[in-house]
Amino acid sequence: MTQYFDADIYTRRIDRARTSVTEQGLGALVVGTGPELAYLTGSWMSSHERLTALVVTGEAAVLIAPATDIAEVAHLDLEVLGWADGQDAHALVAERVGDGPVGLGSSLTADHVLALQAALPAREWRLPTHLAVLKEDAELKQLARAGAAIDAVHAQVPSLLGAGRTEAEVAAELKHLILAEHEAVDFIIVGSGPNGANPHHSFSDRVLQAGDPVVVDVGGTLDSGYHSDCTRTYVVPGGEPPAEFTSAYGVLQRAFSAAVNAVRPGATAQSVDAAAREVIEEGGFGEFFTHRTGHGIGLSTHEEPFIIQGNELVLKEGMCFSVEPGIYVPGQWGMRIEDICAVGGKKAQQLNLQPIALS
Amino acid sequence: MTQYFDADIYTRRIDRARTSVTEQGLGALVVGTGPELAYLTGSWMSSHERLTALVVTGEAAVLIAPATDIAEVAHLDLEVLGWADGQDAHALVAERVGDGPVGLGSSLTADHVLALQAALPAREWRLPTHLAVLKEDAELKQLARAGAAIDAVHAQVPSLLGAGRTEAEVAAELKHLILAEHEAVDFIIVGSGPNGANPHHSFSDRVLQAGDPVVVDVGGTLDSGYHSDCTRTYVVPGGEPPAEFTSAYGVLQRAFSAAVNAVRPGATAQSVDAAAREVIEEGGFGEFFTHRTGHGIGLSTHEEPFIIQGNELVLKEGMCFSVEPGIYVPGQWGMRIEDICAVGGKKAQQLNLQPIALS
Repeated sequence: MTQYFDADIYTRRIDRARTSVTEQGLGALVVGTGPELAYLTGSWMSSHERLTALVVTGEAAVLIAPATDIAEVAHLDLEVLGWADGQDAHALVAERVGDGPVGLGSSLTADHVLALQAALPAREWRLPTHLAVLKEDAELKQLARAGAAIDAVHAQVPSLLGAGRTEAEVAAELKHLILAEHEAVDFIIVGSGPNGANPHHSFSDRVLQAGDPVVVDVGGTLDSGYHSDCTRTYVVPGGEPPAEFTSAYGVLQRAFSAAVNAVRPGATAQSVDAAAREVIEEGGFGEFFTHRTGHGIGLSTHEEPFIIQGNELVLKEGMCFSVEPGIYVPGQWGMRIEDICAVGGKKAQQLNLQPIALS
Repeated sequence: MTQYFDADIYTRRIDRARTSVTEQGLGALVVGTGPELAYLTGSWMSSHERLTALVVTGEAAVLIAPATDIAEVAHLDLEVLGWADGQDAHALVAERVGDGPVGLGSSLTADHVLALQAALPAREWRLPTHLAVLKEDAELKQLARAGAAIDAVHAQVPSLLGAGRTEAEVAAELKHLILAEHEAVDFIIVGSGPNGANPHHSFSDRVLQAGDPVVVDVGGTLDSGYHSDCTRTYVVPGGEPPAEFTSAYGVLQRAFSAAVNAVRPGATAQSVDAAAREVIEEGGFGEFFTHRTGHGIGLSTHEEPFIIQGNELVLKEGMCFSVEPGIYVPGQWGMRIEDICAVGGKKAQQLNLQPIALS
């Protein structure tokens, strides 16, 4: 319940939020519980359907929460206003909002959005700039810790992939390995043979066969709230994968490297996507690369910047996102390579260090 | 990933949603991922920031989801429409919405709410009736299973509460006991002595003393997605609690029984709250009962009906909620008794069966 970082980090973030509210001409930024509140205050409190909202204006910030819950945020260097059952919590928020459009945190839920819109009629509502898109040094250290944690899991994967085992058996062992390095498991994908062709497969009772390609994509949450996310593609020992798979994997390795090499301050998010896509298209597998190249990561597993065609966002030092091209041939096999990259002063800093060669 | 109940249950629920949309004159009901989607389709799929929405009109229902994720809902007896990166998913939803106000599932997030409002300008937006408020027999069986699961945990609590142990040590053992009976831990409160006076305390390093009152409130999630939630108040052996505590506990027992006895079809939600509050006020502790008497429970831990002053909702057979009066004297001690009650044909059916006498 306490803040993971020193209190002054959160003070600086709220100061930055106030400046951002002023620059965007907003009446306020209203943020609900979840990663956005944790980013600004360090608190992961939840109050279910009862409104908890941080209201940030150019001048001030106030946390409005159920009176029964404020004990756990009393230590924050922040004005805290408790409301009791029977009080109109949304009206309390509305009183603190200045003139102009209102910015909403993206994870505020519809019950609160509609109640705030009723309390503040005839306003413009916006999703303002994602404040956490530029990672601070303390955050980059946590994301590097997360990278090392999931690398330690991937280092064990070859020993798990024996012919005759099921994907679910492998997943059960992965769960323990992830928990040994993280506070919580976020997701486990073990996509063997044709199951690998579904990028969002989880795992099934399919039995691994010698020579099967297997996509293993795993992630977890550290005690600090930061996430890991890393994919490698393996081959079950005792047999050879299809020849087309092996040749496609060479294309994928080149696409991955091209995308990582495209990461630098001043490049656009879409240029990183284009770099991977161009190599895969030239290799003849363009129609089988069916998703975007990456997503930002931090206190959320998916956040800005999204590495996707059409995103003209200019990359800056401190941004952090996945680079994860893949090739998926329906009914046959799939493959994906994924590392988390931070934008450094001149190029990408890769936060995952496991080899990408087929093993 | 498969549906927990037989497929026809979900078909009937969607039929009921269609009827409800027609009766409320809505252009559609739009539901995002989470308990509301799980209720209507059986799917707990998550697609992070990418829109997944079930659109229910009077005539039809369609699930709109990222094309990379639809494999896991392909087995549903439902039209499924996949969208690819670059497509405008919110416009796809808008195309399916008829004339009239649009109902939103309460857990749809602000990023999607604002994008839908932009795609459908000049509409009225509503939070429609909570469809899951009347539990079906199959659900009541799951809630009774959840009650038995958490009862088995509480049956072990007296053996954990030795003087000299910390709240955190007790909580660590409770975590294992809850996991032995559930798929996941939802929350653990061990509020000893003055910590019990914070209704939403979790646990701390405070050392239990002989004679300390201890509020233990625990809950978990079953494989079926249904939740447990039960509170008992204990006294650490080897000493006597304060005399005022013991006398207040008699008041609380009477308040709890009065509230349970007020539960019947035709009574209002607020009458159950009033029944508990009246006894506690007459006992002289009215100012120390600082929260509402209860909340609905099902696939969410907190949902309608809320048992609170001002809620004139008429109780019907099949509704299911907590009855949990408490008394909290700041700096001294707290106490709460909580059972889950289903509204039966004539009276409450209590789904928790652990004794409420001080042990």
